Amino acid sequence: MTPPLAPPPPGSPSPRPPGLTLRTEVRSGDAPGVEALVRDTGFFTPDEVAVARELVDAYLTQGPSSGYRFLFAESPRGLAGYTCYGEIPATERRYDLYWIAVSATQQRGGIGRLLLRESEALIAQAGGTRVYIETSSRALYTPTQAFYTNNGYILEARLKQFYTDADDKLIYVKAL
Amino acid sequence: MTPPLAPPPPGSPSPRPPGLTLRTEVRSGDAPGVEALVRDTGFFTPDEVAVARELVDAYLTQGPSSGYRFLFAESPRGLAGYTCYGEIPATERRYDLYWIAVSATQQRGGIGRLLLRESEALIAQAGGTRVYIETSSRALYTPTQAFYTNNGYILEARLKQFYTDADDKLIYVKAL
Repeated sequence: MTPPLAPPPPGSPSPRPPGLTLRTEVRSGDAPGVEALVRDTGFFTPDEVAVARELVDAYLTQGPSSGYRFLFAESPRGLAGYTCYGEIPATERRYDLYWIAVSATQQRGGIGRLLLRESEALIAQAGGTRVYIETSSRALYTPTQAFYTNNGYILEARLKQFYTDADDKLIYVKAL
Repeated sequence: MTPPLAPPPPGSPSPRPPGLTLRTEVRSGDAPGVEALVRDTGFFTPDEVAVARELVDAYLTQGPSSGYRFLFAESPRGLAGYTCYGEIPATERRYDLYWIAVSATQQRGGIGRLLLRESEALIAQAGGTRVYIETSSRALYTPTQAFYTNNGYILEARLKQFYTDADDKLIYVKAL
């Protein structure tokens, strides 16, 4: 007998929080939406917030040739989270997950895990074979690091003092 | 007594090959010039050649806000080599050397070393403290890897199978 609260077995579909819908289409409102969401998480510097929005703007201006792809999660309370990913230029079907963020008011509900799994499925559908994610070594990101490890990512490299004298870059990878 | 062909002591100015001039200004002719130079080296895939040119085009369209900076070396025979570098977004004064290439017909004359040293000087002048360079693990790049090591770069990370199943990414760093 399976306990009623057992985690789903590996490979099973992620449970979708009630009322949550996913879309890949990018709309003009997503530029300010992503900016506000990323800023409100408190995880990112103003420079990083600006970059997050710029990637949405790049897609809105250039379309798919921007190289960026998006997955948005919407709940009845608005934009709940998103990912931004893309094929890494000059590689054979390797992808970068540039951004994954969940609204500060809707965290701990499985939205991040769902977005990550569904983004991996979209990458695999597009022919992608490896996904890279970069993050910071700061203590603020300890839960983020655990999130990647718990979702099958391997810490492959650490670039010491990459962001600042006290902040390394961690590079995670997952073979799909 | 110093032998007449001894290498210059560390930190001494790089000897400048006769007739070679350097400039940081980007001209419209540099877009096709860089494309031809990079293609003719035989070191880069068509995708990579396209990216090299796109960075020049980005500067010609957006100017300094593109984030890219260039150093061109010109000889009486035309464009002899160039570098493209820039501050890494969301870091504190860390720089990427995105491209360094020397014309196929003008290699082995010290132009690469001169371009690298002068680019590092420009980065240091702009406040940069660390320079990152990425390259491929393929045998074709063995001289490139030696070039970086001989110029003070440390191999800090290797991302296995990053470019293809048989081609790792090597990440070098130098603290200025």
